[in-house]
Amino acid sequence: MTTEKFNKVLIANRGEIAVRICRTLKEMGIKSVAVYSEADRDSMHVRAADEAVCIGPASSKESYLNIDAIVSAAKITNTDAIHPGYGFLSENPKFSKAVTKAGIVFIGPTPEAIEALGVKSAAREIAIKAGVPVIPGSDGIVGKNYKEIAKKIGFPIMIKATMGGGGKGMRAVMKEEDLDKMMQMAQNEARAAFGDDRVYFEKLVLAPRHIEVQVAADAHGNVLSFTERDCSMQRRHQKLVEESPSPFVTPEVRKKLTQAASKMIKACQYTGVGTVEFLMDQNKDFYFMEVNTRLQVEHPVTEMVCGYDLVKMQIDIAQGKKLQITPEQALQITCHAIEHRINAEDCENNFAPNPGLITEWIPAGGLGVRVDTHMYTNYTIPSYYDSLIAKLIVWAPSRERAISRAKRALSEFHIGGIKTTIPVHNKILNNKDFASGNMDTGLLERIFKEDESKK
Amino acid sequence: MTTEKFNKVLIANRGEIAVRICRTLKEMGIKSVAVYSEADRDSMHVRAADEAVCIGPASSKESYLNIDAIVSAAKITNTDAIHPGYGFLSENPKFSKAVTKAGIVFIGPTPEAIEALGVKSAAREIAIKAGVPVIPGSDGIVGKNYKEIAKKIGFPIMIKATMGGGGKGMRAVMKEEDLDKMMQMAQNEARAAFGDDRVYFEKLVLAPRHIEVQVAADAHGNVLSFTERDCSMQRRHQKLVEESPSPFVTPEVRKKLTQAASKMIKACQYTGVGTVEFLMDQNKDFYFMEVNTRLQVEHPVTEMVCGYDLVKMQIDIAQGKKLQITPEQALQITCHAIEHRINAEDCENNFAPNPGLITEWIPAGGLGVRVDTHMYTNYTIPSYYDSLIAKLIVWAPSRERAISRAKRALSEFHIGGIKTTIPVHNKILNNKDFASGNMDTGLLERIFKEDESKK
Repeated sequence: MTTEKFNKVLIANRGEIAVRICRTLKEMGIKSVAVYSEADRDSMHVRAADEAVCIGPASSKESYLNIDAIVSAAKITNTDAIHPGYGFLSENPKFSKAVTKAGIVFIGPTPEAIEALGVKSAAREIAIKAGVPVIPGSDGIVGKNYKEIAKKIGFPIMIKATMGGGGKGMRAVMKEEDLDKMMQMAQNEARAAFGDDRVYFEKLVLAPRHIEVQVAADAHGNVLSFTERDCSMQRRHQKLVEESPSPFVTPEVRKKLTQAASKMIKACQYTGVGTVEFLMDQNKDFYFMEVNTRLQVEHPVTEMVCGYDLVKMQIDIAQGKKLQITPEQALQITCHAIEHRINAEDCENNFAPNPGLITEWIPAGGLGVRVDTHMYTNYTIPSYYDSLIAKLIVWAPSRERAISRAKRALSEFHIGGIKTTIPVHNKILNNKDFASGNMDTGLLERIFKEDESKK
Repeated sequence: MTTEKFNKVLIANRGEIAVRICRTLKEMGIKSVAVYSEADRDSMHVRAADEAVCIGPASSKESYLNIDAIVSAAKITNTDAIHPGYGFLSENPKFSKAVTKAGIVFIGPTPEAIEALGVKSAAREIAIKAGVPVIPGSDGIVGKNYKEIAKKIGFPIMIKATMGGGGKGMRAVMKEEDLDKMMQMAQNEARAAFGDDRVYFEKLVLAPRHIEVQVAADAHGNVLSFTERDCSMQRRHQKLVEESPSPFVTPEVRKKLTQAASKMIKACQYTGVGTVEFLMDQNKDFYFMEVNTRLQVEHPVTEMVCGYDLVKMQIDIAQGKKLQITPEQALQITCHAIEHRINAEDCENNFAPNPGLITEWIPAGGLGVRVDTHMYTNYTIPSYYDSLIAKLIVWAPSRERAISRAKRALSEFHIGGIKTTIPVHNKILNNKDFASGNMDTGLLERIFKEDESKK
């Protein structure tokens, strides 16, 4: 951990998050280095940065996941630190080790913390030791006696890959008869996605909410928990709408929840920003799920609610600075914020990716509207990467007004040439359960089914 | 004054402010009607509104200044109220009278208040009676004995048109010998611009600041004053950069200033939102200049600082509602905000208007950035109207960080095909006097001169 000011930071990422990180670096007076694949020459993150290095061909494996190429780019450009963004190498302990070994600061937690928290069964053990509530489950990787363990927990159960993320390697098993088949599917998927087919079991909480707590911890022992985010609006475990505060969480529950998050972070000697994810049941009891040891896609809703720049906080912490915010300030609620993920996907065709030429790009604007994007008119979205093209963040004094503002903002967002998830966001905003704050992680699928039945 | 909820509001304006008003109407669930000239068929405000009516040819006189056409459009569309925006007919008492006579609510003060405050010498008399400090001057229109009056005030003096606005009909007279010539010029300009050549004199305050107070008053006697805006960065009396709070105003001065603004508003039984403009000298003594009886171009900086939607406030007041904000809440300072007016003008050529086809439009975005605009890629700016094409508003926890953010935001704002004032904004942000908050209304001209001398 350095206490020097960084002169130059390399961003080991692409798309909107690379642009977003460039913005804060520029505001802090720190030079930025973009890395890009051959498919990303025209990407906005390349022009947003002060310097840019091509690190390989289009395939992520050979570019954005290529540790050697990225570390070399950092050395060539005389970079002080690397910001990993989210996805790609952001939670890969090998990457942070390689960066550190090259004498470069990794903007994030230590490799040990990433490693410990990255194995979900190990994270669960840390939570249990720290007294953070967890879902009843297998307490570690399941072996050949998995049927026995499942029966002991009681159905329904959830199979989860230890290296899981983004919903990959997860399967719900409603009854005993399905266990073998689902086990096979989860293991196959986990092996394909992570090269590791180890799985563990958890009791399946019915109609749960996905509630998560943004945290920040410096190297001086200060830990902050921010007002929770509600990310219950998911399609196949992929978040589509996130908001803060959760309409379901009361001040009393918030206190317990944020205390649990801080306890978890202290227990693993975490530094940097991160997110502690929980499931919350209908009684508002919550269970630890996992820690994401990086910036989240949905971090802007917290920024709007608390008023702080989380990327600046990451960089300050990596520079060895003390957090300048009190735990009370971190929990201030200045507004209600909602984020809509606008993806280049065809909602009418099972959300198939829909890359291509953007013939018209008119983003929403005005009071209470933030757009984080790397799109512009006449840009061609390459087909190699994920389909997130913009995050629309709205905020207002109340949830009701934030929903009205989101409707207004979506109505003025004009995207030509490709299909996007905007129609789904309109459906969500007009759904009665969503409007009343009565969401669980199954609501979005129910909205789709209802819609299907009308056809 | 109605107490009914409006179903439909017509916006008697164009450009960014028409789009901005549409946004709030949509969020409030009120239908919007746009009016447009034949030159504005492709304008964004036409698509932003629920309905649109063509009110005449390109010339403002025959369209946006055509009272009969606008009132007819309102009647045809069964509109409950008219929002005048700024400029055009917004401060024309004939318009508000015609609207009211047609049984439609005018969103703004009464015709009597507009009339009284529109004649600057009358407004000054109201201020004197109310105990609001004014600049020593002629106390009314000057007649044939103008030389005597000027000598009595003492040079330097300022000649001002009673119907003035936007710097038209104003002339500084540094010494007695110039008086006759300047008097002629001011009167000629006033006659051409307003059809009224009456002028009055004021003592010229050297190196003053332009400080203004946003106010709001409902029909129930509640008056609010908001944290001041500093609009000292002007070119030929045209504001280019506005910010809030003023780096020059201390909490003690703010208290006196906002009390004076409230006193002025109460004295003329004002309802609606408005702005009380002051000059402030180097001793932080301030003098009343005028009241603008409408929304200002720079209202967004106040919205970011106080957290309220001023257009919603106008509509609520016009619907007869009580202000829901305490005077203390109105004065809360949540951030430092700066607005940059981006005009389609050629800075290298005496700021000549530079309309035409926009070949590339990539607005700034991200945390702490708001863009109010009616531009988009492939839009052609017509040559008939004013040159404001976008307002870039940034906000941050401190003035220093707001300046860093403004620099960052301007660096990512890409406008192709036309020339804009962006280079001037960069110069301002990099100027030492601006950075240290040491501005007066002459600073911008000094920056230009310094720049000229370097060539």
